[in-house]
Amino acid sequence: MEYINKYIKENKERFIDELINLLKIPSISADPAYKQDVMNCADAVAGSLKSAGANNVEICPTAGYPIVYADMIIDKSLPTVLVYGHYDVQPADPLELWESGPFDPIIKKTETHPDGAIFARGACDDKGQFYMHVKAFELMIETNTLPCNLKFMIEGEEEVGSEHLSDFVVSNKEKLSCDAILISDTGIISNNTPSITTGLKGLSYLEVEVTGPNRDLHSGLYGGAVANPINILCEMIAKLKDENNKITIPGFYDNVAELSIEERAKMAKAPFSLDEYKKALELTDVHGEEGFTTMERTGIRPTLDVNGIWGGYIGEGAKTVIPSKAFAKISMRLVPHQSDNEITQLFTDYFKSIAPKSVKVEVRPHHGGEPYVSPTDIIAYKAASQAMKTTYGKEPVPVRSGGEYSNSSII
Amino acid sequence: MEYINKYIKENKERFIDELINLLKIPSISADPAYKQDVMNCADAVAGSLKSAGANNVEICPTAGYPIVYADMIIDKSLPTVLVYGHYDVQPADPLELWESGPFDPIIKKTETHPDGAIFARGACDDKGQFYMHVKAFELMIETNTLPCNLKFMIEGEEEVGSEHLSDFVVSNKEKLSCDAILISDTGIISNNTPSITTGLKGLSYLEVEVTGPNRDLHSGLYGGAVANPINILCEMIAKLKDENNKITIPGFYDNVAELSIEERAKMAKAPFSLDEYKKALELTDVHGEEGFTTMERTGIRPTLDVNGIWGGYIGEGAKTVIPSKAFAKISMRLVPHQSDNEITQLFTDYFKSIAPKSVKVEVRPHHGGEPYVSPTDIIAYKAASQAMKTTYGKEPVPVRSGGEYSNSSII
Repeated sequence: MEYINKYIKENKERFIDELINLLKIPSISADPAYKQDVMNCADAVAGSLKSAGANNVEICPTAGYPIVYADMIIDKSLPTVLVYGHYDVQPADPLELWESGPFDPIIKKTETHPDGAIFARGACDDKGQFYMHVKAFELMIETNTLPCNLKFMIEGEEEVGSEHLSDFVVSNKEKLSCDAILISDTGIISNNTPSITTGLKGLSYLEVEVTGPNRDLHSGLYGGAVANPINILCEMIAKLKDENNKITIPGFYDNVAELSIEERAKMAKAPFSLDEYKKALELTDVHGEEGFTTMERTGIRPTLDVNGIWGGYIGEGAKTVIPSKAFAKISMRLVPHQSDNEITQLFTDYFKSIAPKSVKVEVRPHHGGEPYVSPTDIIAYKAASQAMKTTYGKEPVPVRSGGEYSNSSII
Repeated sequence: MEYINKYIKENKERFIDELINLLKIPSISADPAYKQDVMNCADAVAGSLKSAGANNVEICPTAGYPIVYADMIIDKSLPTVLVYGHYDVQPADPLELWESGPFDPIIKKTETHPDGAIFARGACDDKGQFYMHVKAFELMIETNTLPCNLKFMIEGEEEVGSEHLSDFVVSNKEKLSCDAILISDTGIISNNTPSITTGLKGLSYLEVEVTGPNRDLHSGLYGGAVANPINILCEMIAKLKDENNKITIPGFYDNVAELSIEERAKMAKAPFSLDEYKKALELTDVHGEEGFTTMERTGIRPTLDVNGIWGGYIGEGAKTVIPSKAFAKISMRLVPHQSDNEITQLFTDYFKSIAPKSVKVEVRPHHGGEPYVSPTDIIAYKAASQAMKTTYGKEPVPVRSGGEYSNSSII
């Protein structure tokens, strides 16, 4: 560990400056207005891999944003690890909730980060993480300690469903061949309880549109006589869950892997304080599927959330309108062995079936992803576990998660 | 009628130019960005009353937008008619649904208006209407045919609930004293079926805010474990009506004046084609309270509509967020003898009572208004009816309505 600590100490300022420059690029893949920034970010990532010492760096075009690929093959008989990451970030709104600019990174000491943390959009989703691997790679090259072959695949469309990643992977099987994939796009329970994510939920994400009358109407004249698409949309969304917060879509739970009582008991041993959870989020109470704990709800149960809703007059003051249309973005987090395509179809069929005759409904799938669970008795997991133990002084616990963390990264 | 037609013919071009200039002013009272325009509009209205010949014109300040008052007292022994109107207009969004600019008035011939109509925001809500009365007044002054005393009260806050009108009226009882009030801020059934509005619904308008976690969360990590304020808001809105579209707020219908079978039978004689109604709005079906016809739903029954809803990510693409807050604007149209204050309170109590423990709920009343029904056996109604008959060739039918018309004004 000594040479590692020495290298970090000697290069810390440069590391921080480089990461901050990366975080300044507003690489928001969801918003076409930032197209050039996303492209610039791909260039910056390629540059960082080149300077770290990769002997082959490529910016691979796709039908969407490019994938940055790099490798360092030192001996074909050694195992190969592929590091996955993404250089795009989530949109930064609502901007008024940011204490500093999302693309003006600042280092701030907080109660939970007494040594200071970087606050910026993408700081730990996912620029901070893949940058950490790039710097670890640099260190191993500089100190001649690289123990295996290494490949990097850093994409630019993770936040919009990785639409073109699958084509790229299928077309580049040999180039991407490896023995293990290392993904740092999740979180750990805490610095006191290190953890490795072994399972990730899948995703089905859709946008729905409900149309009532063909134009906006005055609620005084038409109210009560025509379908108000907002009221109807709300009623349809309410019908997606029953009084126990179980999702009502027929067939939705058919392929859900049910855990044994033993497995659930083992999971329940992970440290978790409901009081602290509620306090941190200022919740008067938690809310979820009857019969499952909070950890089970996030870890092993599929979920459904409305991620956005809009319709009618949303400006200041009052307007007595019955809008022509109302919209919502709805996503479902899936667990093994649900299939995102199948769930998307089940949702679509059910949502259309519960629409009253008085409205028209459109359902547009945005993107999806299959759920995955990794075994823990493989050498790659054991190596990762050993590395975490060396760093944190404690064996990490394997956890299943729903998605990636965000907000800040400890430095 | 001859001298009237002559005067109109000789002055038509000027009338249209003047009205178009008035319509060009974006006097949107709901949006503070247009404050100066609303003030300018008050000046323009006062100017038009002055040039029409009023012997006293005042721009009366209020705590909000001013009320334009004018009068012409020719003989205190004659009856006095007060004309009410409003010079403010509704916000013009969604702008993409306008074929021409909302404040760039154009004259267009359409299927329903073969002689041409002005299309502009406020053209018939309510600038077109009160302008018509100003010009009728001008004619009667010019031709020395004014048969009564006349007062004008044109306000600038109708579209935001006339908050300061009531104070003004209470403080100026003598100034505003009159024998009849003439309000042209409604519509007629059609040119073939002239009608006079004798009843207007009241209004209770509220904004609700549902708060879940104290900040926006990632749905992958927290989905299914914390209350999503959008889902909860939808569920709460869905609970405001039952499966027969009856409003579920306890006590809501307690004071509703129920009409006799005879009164309902008389109302049902008003010409109305459900097929044409559905066709005009491109509705697959109408939608409303079980047990009542479409005309009854809009005319004699209280209603509840969501006029706006928003929360979470509403930009392009996908974002897997659980927002901290979700909002809706909700209004109820009231009938005799419901009281807007009472209904606002009943709504607030009920809405809070159906909130799950996992969220916080705020309800903010926007503005209200009491319902009203005018008798038809009074001299003012008879005079109005006679005037309509002279113009349209047919006796007008008395109707009850929920609010004012909008979109276009026939010239």
